[in-house]
Amino acid sequence: MSIMEYFTPTHVYFGAGAAEKTAEVLKKEGASKVLVHFGTGSVKRSGLLDRVEKDLADHGIEFVELGGVVPNPRVSLVRKGIELVKENDIDFILAVGGGSVLDSAKAIGYGAFGGGDVWDFYCGKRKVEGTVPVATVLTLSATGSEMSDSSVITNDETEITYKRGCNTDFGRVRCAFLDPELTYTVSAYQTASGSTDIMMHTLERYFHQGYALDMTDKLSFALLKEVMESAPEAIEKPDDYDARANLMWAGSISHNGLMAAGNSNRGDWACHQIEHELSAEFDVAHGAGLAAIWGSWARYVLDTDPSRFAKLGQGVFGTDDPVRTIECFEEFFRSINMPTDLKGLGLDFDEAACRKAALGVTFQDARTIGNFKVLNTEDIFNIYMMAAGLK
Amino acid sequence: MSIMEYFTPTHVYFGAGAAEKTAEVLKKEGASKVLVHFGTGSVKRSGLLDRVEKDLADHGIEFVELGGVVPNPRVSLVRKGIELVKENDIDFILAVGGGSVLDSAKAIGYGAFGGGDVWDFYCGKRKVEGTVPVATVLTLSATGSEMSDSSVITNDETEITYKRGCNTDFGRVRCAFLDPELTYTVSAYQTASGSTDIMMHTLERYFHQGYALDMTDKLSFALLKEVMESAPEAIEKPDDYDARANLMWAGSISHNGLMAAGNSNRGDWACHQIEHELSAEFDVAHGAGLAAIWGSWARYVLDTDPSRFAKLGQGVFGTDDPVRTIECFEEFFRSINMPTDLKGLGLDFDEAACRKAALGVTFQDARTIGNFKVLNTEDIFNIYMMAAGLK
Repeated sequence: MSIMEYFTPTHVYFGAGAAEKTAEVLKKEGASKVLVHFGTGSVKRSGLLDRVEKDLADHGIEFVELGGVVPNPRVSLVRKGIELVKENDIDFILAVGGGSVLDSAKAIGYGAFGGGDVWDFYCGKRKVEGTVPVATVLTLSATGSEMSDSSVITNDETEITYKRGCNTDFGRVRCAFLDPELTYTVSAYQTASGSTDIMMHTLERYFHQGYALDMTDKLSFALLKEVMESAPEAIEKPDDYDARANLMWAGSISHNGLMAAGNSNRGDWACHQIEHELSAEFDVAHGAGLAAIWGSWARYVLDTDPSRFAKLGQGVFGTDDPVRTIECFEEFFRSINMPTDLKGLGLDFDEAACRKAALGVTFQDARTIGNFKVLNTEDIFNIYMMAAGLK
Repeated sequence: MSIMEYFTPTHVYFGAGAAEKTAEVLKKEGASKVLVHFGTGSVKRSGLLDRVEKDLADHGIEFVELGGVVPNPRVSLVRKGIELVKENDIDFILAVGGGSVLDSAKAIGYGAFGGGDVWDFYCGKRKVEGTVPVATVLTLSATGSEMSDSSVITNDETEITYKRGCNTDFGRVRCAFLDPELTYTVSAYQTASGSTDIMMHTLERYFHQGYALDMTDKLSFALLKEVMESAPEAIEKPDDYDARANLMWAGSISHNGLMAAGNSNRGDWACHQIEHELSAEFDVAHGAGLAAIWGSWARYVLDTDPSRFAKLGQGVFGTDDPVRTIECFEEFFRSINMPTDLKGLGLDFDEAACRKAALGVTFQDARTIGNFKVLNTEDIFNIYMMAAGLK
């Protein structure tokens, strides 16, 4: 039996108005000069950025701005951030926005602390050994980056675009301000995509070979049921506090390690790898990409252990039929206008495109992925082909 | 809407063999001289203490022993521990045992750091402002102290015995080594009592006035169901790893704040106050005392909001009948040989005893308790009378 570590040191402030605590808490945490990092402008338009910055100033905290983070955040902007941190003696990074902004902030933290080429941390050449502390005012329930050890960055400086993740406990942010009301303006599509991402962080952990703690399975089922109840409510009524609050907290605990606690490993993660290849190349929404892939992955790996699917179905849908379980998830995805194949995602893949993407996932046949079922290039090609409707 | 804080910084090492990591991790955490704190000898007899101490020595970590912690741990021993820490320049306290040992270790940490009279922290005269870091090798699934901010100490130096709790984030232990195999030797009675304590930490949080996050309610139902499945299994087969592991993790997450996340307050806690009076005076097992009280409390407060009971019944037992919900919990308690009244607990209370205990709970009518329904001395008297079969 392997020993599992569970470590979630992030200090969370949750509820309507939580963002108003930001400056007060950062002051207490010792911040004196902050890099305020954000995206392409929605936090400016909403007035949130102004409120946060005014609050920082009122608490005597200096700040420097760096906006411009795009979905699937780019290493080129990360490098700019690292320079800003160094030039300005920044001692805290505050990400105001969604998971992309936060992942970019984490990367800036690693690079500013560690020196050298920040991409080294993402392609596995060097280990992160510290970070400039990071806090976040979150505006999107999706990636779970606010409590996870994860950050995913896209390399836009090479001929082929790469998307790579870096997992380290230094990526656990110091404090997270989670105000569900800040997600009222999230569009129906982004709400659906984010909710799918939340579900997938639990599903990826649920499927693995090795020891699974039943307490954790039961929590996983509770989380999946909650997201499937709350996502349609939030889409129907964007300012439904309950729905937004359930999604926001589900997002955090789906990816902070709780849904793998006591298990002998961290899960499968094949779907994330298969999807990263799509969102890096075609800039599709990550959650939508996962929805488009999951059913094909599930059918491909089902025979490995149908009982694991049956237990999931029993816990979430009240069916112990493995195939019906897969269908139920797909029906849910379609009910919130998420695609369940590549065509629905807007990608018209032929056989060559499937082959190219599969080779991308395995770094040109240099690795396998997955834990529930270990997948090689041929397996991944087959899954892309199924998702493309060619098999 | 009030802002909820969630902060669980404890680094958990979970699984068979987790205790073997102790010295290695403590070394990494900077420990050089450790107070090894334990109870009345079971960890000596089992050989666990020897193994842990040998491991410390092998890692070049010095240690001083302090055994003798009893259930409902005494402030007199805490004072001895504080002296030992000061005399020996101890920089880490390691609690090897159950929740009582750990609560005593926390108190030693507060007292050694803060100086003055340690009891001041427990009767609310002073706030804890730091601690000598504490780690634990846990041998009992019950109190949840391994991840909670709580420590409960009994004052045995005064004419009347007092039991008081102290809640502070400084009480979050640095690291917890949770090996379910170390609980194989826990007796059927202590397993049942501990399981009841675990359930009550969730039930106390579930019942409150104010905002309740549905995601958290669903997690609570999952936890209660798991404990009610696993406790009988662990009682039937003491070395059932799955059952022991489920109980151990349930114990930790039932009391670390997760089961109140997103809620507008920390819960009711009246039953704990009503029970503390019993275990301080009569040294009954805390969990058993809670089982003996809960049904009477529930019937007394039911009318305040029957729908909250109905939701609980639906989530855990598939019934939306509030009274039936209470009965189902009592039937479960009896099925694992827990008492559901004071007689079953071995206490033959008359009216005067009920009156005296009620006044003890309210510090001689100086406070009320509870949040779901606020209870004064008369209310508490009535609950004791119901539990004594006199009403």
